[in-house]
Order: sequence, then C-alpha cells, then structure tokens
Amino acid sequence: MTREDLFEEIKKKRSFLCVGLDTDLDKIPAHLLKEEDPVFEFNKQIIDATKDLCIAYKPNLAFYECRGAAGWESLRKTLEYIPGNLFTIADAKRGDIGNTSLMYAQTFFNPEKSGLDFDSVTVAPYMGVDSVTPFLGFEGKWAILLALTSNEGNKDFQYLETEDDFLYEKVITISQEWAGPDRLMYVVGATQADAFADVRKLAPDHFLLVPGIGAQGGNLKEIAKCGLNKQCGLIVNSSRGIIYASSGEDFAEKARLEAEKLQKEMQHLLEKM
Amino acid sequence: MTREDLFEEIKKKRSFLCVGLDTDLDKIPAHLLKEEDPVFEFNKQIIDATKDLCIAYKPNLAFYECRGAAGWESLRKTLEYIPGNLFTIADAKRGDIGNTSLMYAQTFFNPEKSGLDFDSVTVAPYMGVDSVTPFLGFEGKWAILLALTSNEGNKDFQYLETEDDFLYEKVITISQEWAGPDRLMYVVGATQADAFADVRKLAPDHFLLVPGIGAQGGNLKEIAKCGLNKQCGLIVNSSRGIIYASSGEDFAEKARLEAEKLQKEMQHLLEKM
Repeated sequence: MTREDLFEEIKKKRSFLCVGLDTDLDKIPAHLLKEEDPVFEFNKQIIDATKDLCIAYKPNLAFYECRGAAGWESLRKTLEYIPGNLFTIADAKRGDIGNTSLMYAQTFFNPEKSGLDFDSVTVAPYMGVDSVTPFLGFEGKWAILLALTSNEGNKDFQYLETEDDFLYEKVITISQEWAGPDRLMYVVGATQADAFADVRKLAPDHFLLVPGIGAQGGNLKEIAKCGLNKQCGLIVNSSRGIIYASSGEDFAEKARLEAEKLQKEMQHLLEKM
Repeated sequence: MTREDLFEEIKKKRSFLCVGLDTDLDKIPAHLLKEEDPVFEFNKQIIDATKDLCIAYKPNLAFYECRGAAGWESLRKTLEYIPGNLFTIADAKRGDIGNTSLMYAQTFFNPEKSGLDFDSVTVAPYMGVDSVTPFLGFEGKWAILLALTSNEGNKDFQYLETEDDFLYEKVITISQEWAGPDRLMYVVGATQADAFADVRKLAPDHFLLVPGIGAQGGNLKEIAKCGLNKQCGLIVNSSRGIIYASSGEDFAEKARLEAEKLQKEMQHLLEKM
C-alpha cells in the first residue's frame, strides 16, 4: 500500500485508528471456545464490527506464536480476512543480521513462502543498517522502526544521551539514510506526548505508528497536537481498550462502540487540521 | 538447564561449540526434498552427526517462520529430537512491552502452550527493563541479551558513545540489575574480538553466546584469549560453515568433519586454561 492510498483511506473514513489484534485465548469470551479456531472467530467478528471505523489492523505476533503452528494458522486466516483497503501491520519487532532479516521480510511480505502478505512489519533498530534494509526492498511494503516506545523500559536505553541527542533521535536520524517516508515509519509511544514535537522536527513527513493510548495511558488529543502533519501522519493503535471492551457475547458490539468513540474524536481532530 | 549442568557438558565434551540450525529449503541437498518434512530430516541428520561434538543447538527462528505453520512444526519436531543434555537456544531476537514479552517467553519456554521447550532465547535490549524481565522468571531458563552483535550494522547504534561508554556497554551494565549470570547471557559477535577484554571487565562470570566465526570471519583463538573464564563462559556458534559444508548426499558427514575441526581447536584452548 502506498502513502497516498493510506491517506485516501484516512480521509474517507475520517479516522486514523488501528485496531490491535492482541488476541489471547485466555481473554476471549467463553462461548467462542467451542469454535474450531476461537482466535480466528474472535478476530473475524472484531473485524466485521470495526472495519468501517479504522484504517489498519495490527496483529501482535507474540499472541499467535505462543500457540505454535496452530497460532500461525489463525494469523494467516485473520490476515486473509482483512479487506484489502485496510493497512496491515505485523507487530513482530524483528531484526537480525542481513541474511536473517531477509528471511523475516520473506515471512511477512512473501505469501508464496509463508502464506502471509502484510503491508508492514515493526522492526527493532539495535542491530543497525543491515538488519533493517532487507525490509525496505519490497514494493509497496513498509518497515516501522522502533524509535521511542510506550513502555516503562524506554528510559533504559532510548533516552540515553549520546553526543548531542537521545538514542531514539539518533535512530530516527540515521535510519533516514536508509529509506524515505515512502518505505519507513516510526513507532512513537502515546505515553511520550512531550516528545512528538521533537520527533516531528526530525521526521516531518513520516507516518508514526502510535501505540499506548487506552490501557497504557496515552492521550489522543495531546499526541495529535504535535503529531499530525499534512497527510495526517499518524496511525494510532488501541488493542485491549477495544477488543476486550466486553468479555460477554456482546464483545463485538462493545468493541465497535469503543472504536467509534475514538473514530469520532479523530474525525474532530482531522477537521481542525 | 543450570550453569553447572552446562559447564559439566562442556568439560565432558571438551567443546563449547553450538551448531546453528539456519536450515533453508533452498540450500539443503536436493535428495531430501522428497521427504515429508525435508527441514526436519536435514536437522535430524545434522544432529545425529554432531551431537557428541557440540554442547548446544541454535535454531534461527526466521528460517522456520518464513514457512508459516509448516515451519513451526519442523521447529517443534527438531527441538523434540535434540537430546536433553544439549543446551537449546531459540535465536529469535524478541522483545516488546511487558505483557507481550511474557507471551514470547511462553512461546519458547512453555511447552503446554506452544509445544516448544527451549532452554534459552535471544532478546533485543532496545525496549529496556520490562521487555527483558519476563524472560527471566522461568526456572532453569535463560535470556541471552544482544550486547555487541557480529554484523556491519553494529556500528550504527551499539558503538554510539554515551556519557562514558558505548551503548553496548550500557546494555551490559544496566541489565545486570535485572538478573545475574545464572539467568542472563550476552551475545557478543566473534567479529568484535577486540571488545572481549572490555566485555569481560563488565561481565566476568557470564556466559557469552558468540556468533560470527566462519562465514562472518571471526577467529576462535582471538575470542578465547580474553573470552574464556573459569567456567569456560563461551558458547561459540557456527551455522553455515557446518551445516552447508557439502550440498551433496554426504552433507552430514561433512558437517561432522567441520564440527570436529572446531571441537579439536576448542579442546586445545580449554586445556590451556
């Protein structure tokens, strides 16, 4: 999917919402457990209930691979079920030496090998250039590089001071030598609202994938203030706040209501642009 | 597996060799392709041919997951086939926010959930404390944290200067607040031989997982000089140099010869300790 396609979808839906599919067998409603593939059935109903309100889905790989081969099969079916106009993110935080990163890229971008055809994958920067560039060689596909994450542990390394800036700023600066805003996005956590102005100075045109609203405490309005750019430039994710809004048979309806609240708020923020 | 168990195995085998199972359908001998699961069949023969010469096996996750559910099934069967006295490493470079890292830990350490029961998993440090600690809570299991990797891209961030040391040194220092040398190891690339003295100052007792000899150019003797400690403290990996020593029907024999060369060299280095 191109940047223009993504922006068109945002304008059409008046939304920059991503629904995170952190689907956990221990948390989905009990009545689904009798299904042949409860995780897929849950995702299917969540997708049906939210696909007109969001522009992206983000399956969190850990929640699938913890069930081994069966989990990968649920993931494949889920991805196949997501309509083609929605942007898909493999939240996998991969990254290894060049030949191995290329294998990971094949995993997420080459359906003939793996059965999966994601639009993008999240990538960890620690191993540097040759760990990231293999993800950048696929037409219409994206690497979303971790810059400043939403969790407590971001203080340990991402805020370390190097010569004249923080490590996460170095990640943003150096990675721009590898690809432009048509292939690369950054993860910037919603809990780090104060950092968005600095991020936008370094990466004015890039899309930012923003996790951490809802359960983790980030605030949408705060992020939008400095984060929005002329092509929106934000994909804001909510996982638990939407998909686990109810643990009963009405889980999909309740998920829709939560997604709708965020979509309305986003519509309002986009109109003010 | 405990540190003592691992050291016993090293003394018994006179070896600190790890065989990397980067098993690629496009590279294994053609005659295996008629098997039901060629990747497992290849691994099985490699394991049979090398298990008395090495102390660990390290499947590289990318090479399995790029084949989707089928690849995970090959991985599960491979792991099950490895004898219990050998240390197993899921080379997965995982790491995410706390609840997600816990799912990854379950993937590799909880056979009831995933079918996999590895002794250890490689973990990326970028997301800090809560991304690593979930891997440290399993009795007899290990996190192997990326410190200084073997690839070209290590220059981008790992050698960035922070206050008074390099980022990779900060990773080693800070992570020691999370666990001791009974739960935590570090990845230090064989291509970085000059750094081993500095690493040993910071982490005298830890086991180091050392990739990058052979195809990547690292030298065993150079690493051993500063890397060996009183419990050996090194697990040196070779992947391509062993498993792809021949592309013919004699691949397992030739793999054994390459493993034997390294084992002999290691025996010699251990005797000089």
